[in-house]
Amino acid sequence: MGEPRHGPDDSVTADVPPEARRPAVRPRVELAMSPELPAKLFPPPVARRLRAVADVDLAAPLTEFTSADARARLGRARVLLTGWGSPVIDERTLSHAPRLGAVVHAAGTVKGHVTPAIFARGVRVSSAAAANALPVAEYTLAMVLLANKAVPALARAYRERRDRIDLIGEYPDVGNYAKTVGVVGASRVGRRVLELLAPFDLEVLVSDPYLGADEAAALGARPVGLDELFARSDVVSLHAPAVEATRGMVDAARLAAMRTGATLINTARGSLVDQDALLAELRGGRISAVLDVTEPEIMAPDSELWRLPNVVLTPHVAGALGTELVRLGAHAVDETLRFLAGEPLRHEVRPEQLASIA
Amino acid sequence: MGEPRHGPDDSVTADVPPEARRPAVRPRVELAMSPELPAKLFPPPVARRLRAVADVDLAAPLTEFTSADARARLGRARVLLTGWGSPVIDERTLSHAPRLGAVVHAAGTVKGHVTPAIFARGVRVSSAAAANALPVAEYTLAMVLLANKAVPALARAYRERRDRIDLIGEYPDVGNYAKTVGVVGASRVGRRVLELLAPFDLEVLVSDPYLGADEAAALGARPVGLDELFARSDVVSLHAPAVEATRGMVDAARLAAMRTGATLINTARGSLVDQDALLAELRGGRISAVLDVTEPEIMAPDSELWRLPNVVLTPHVAGALGTELVRLGAHAVDETLRFLAGEPLRHEVRPEQLASIA
Repeated sequence: MGEPRHGPDDSVTADVPPEARRPAVRPRVELAMSPELPAKLFPPPVARRLRAVADVDLAAPLTEFTSADARARLGRARVLLTGWGSPVIDERTLSHAPRLGAVVHAAGTVKGHVTPAIFARGVRVSSAAAANALPVAEYTLAMVLLANKAVPALARAYRERRDRIDLIGEYPDVGNYAKTVGVVGASRVGRRVLELLAPFDLEVLVSDPYLGADEAAALGARPVGLDELFARSDVVSLHAPAVEATRGMVDAARLAAMRTGATLINTARGSLVDQDALLAELRGGRISAVLDVTEPEIMAPDSELWRLPNVVLTPHVAGALGTELVRLGAHAVDETLRFLAGEPLRHEVRPEQLASIA
Repeated sequence: MGEPRHGPDDSVTADVPPEARRPAVRPRVELAMSPELPAKLFPPPVARRLRAVADVDLAAPLTEFTSADARARLGRARVLLTGWGSPVIDERTLSHAPRLGAVVHAAGTVKGHVTPAIFARGVRVSSAAAANALPVAEYTLAMVLLANKAVPALARAYRERRDRIDLIGEYPDVGNYAKTVGVVGASRVGRRVLELLAPFDLEVLVSDPYLGADEAAALGARPVGLDELFARSDVVSLHAPAVEATRGMVDAARLAAMRTGATLINTARGSLVDQDALLAELRGGRISAVLDVTEPEIMAPDSELWRLPNVVLTPHVAGALGTELVRLGAHAVDETLRFLAGEPLRHEVRPEQLASIA
């Protein structure tokens, strides 16, 4: 990498600027995630920023918290930098981590590994949900623009016919003009979708029980109830959290209320949608769907959804993927550096949010 | 529609404001386009604005300029409002149109029907290329965001396998982060694409022989030569005009220089690309393509392009389609009203542009 390396025994001399001096005992950061992730999350420039202030072994993340080695490492950790595949951090884990001050997650949701015990001990929690929201919103924007124009249907028809298509006669109502997009949930992703929709000639509706009319207007959207949103939108995109109150919120009645030719986009969670009702509505071909998530996550090989021509299926890829993992890693490292410097966290997860976040 | 209608014999009284008064002989606007188009271009609110100042028959556009009826209508026309399917306006046509002051096109390119004879007579020409650029740029943006993330490939693989995909292992380099998009041509469409790319974490290159470095910087892009653009971009999108100088500009060498995994998007014209070289490069699967245009426009039914998995083919739909036609119609009506009011045209096509525009 070329930059000067300092071992723990480097002496701090008068000509080293104060900000470069490090305490005699550097804080220890432990990683907990799938073994292949650190190389993706923390490329050299990001890793350097972390190593400049903390001792960390990026090559061997913890994948369990019960072995003697894991407990020894937990015992030294000031920060647990977590990612996909992190084991659950429960009371027993915490009992071996007396110095732990923060769990910083380099991914979206912390619901899989963060427990109330963490908050009870006063350990701070942060997530990279804000960074993960960007790619989800980008995928959504792309699919909105293509769905309004019936591009998936046009591409399919063109390949099947291998001939000129009567666009004016057969596709009179397509286009990204005088169309209505309904955004369900003013979550981080939902808000970013609203921002990204601003440059287009589209009417935008938003439905969120916690969103005020002024705030919706500032986001360029008209707040409506969920039933009105489903009935009026040409594209409905789901960005609500998967909680008990949202389970099956997209039910048979709301699907039946959708406009003929409309498209449902789900990049949130399969549980928001009554899967049987969706299949029934899609089977008739009256509406289309873009599904990045389903329930179950991987459908049975004989599911009809795999074969329906009016469904675009992707394998849960709207969130951070490939190079986008670097954005998550950089986000988590920034947050870790803030914590270690005693600065306020920017993306703290509070205990009362645990029940309502995605 | 509810608004008051005025026949040609309405008397103008003192209590009618001056701007509502019309001359005794109202200007005549004639339409020249495919018969099904006027209903799509000029829905009632747009038609009303035109009828408020001109006599026009929206139900029967001219589709030829040689019959006695057509010549009689040409003889009255102050404005020819043209669209797709307009016959060519040549010297002979003009000899029957002594009152003609403007040809206003309700579509993008005027190259199909506008001849130098029109300019020679001092007849003004206007096009809706600016309005047609919006949907092309929107289609392009959507495809850029999906191509960087390999969404077409992921969707295909998911349907084929009907099983979990090892995203981190198999798709390590996808994503809309730390990627480079190359825009060929700072045309109306190209500039709109550059604007739309602004909110994303993408490096943007632009290649255009007529674009200065300052102007490129203002558009948020780095100006480079065509060879560098092809060699460095993860997605290359073509927005150059189809003129002699651009024929086959995307040749075997430039295609071979593209990064492995890169995507070529063509929403411009098939003639920009050496079709045989493209097919050869695509056949190997090293790059992908999104082709809204090809040469010939409709490929032979046995063309290999129809079957290649790494090609998204759409039937020339990136431009205005469906509801987007209303935008073209409104644009042309606005321009017609300006001309009839003696105001400057906003979208005038000048004779010297005829050779270099798309």
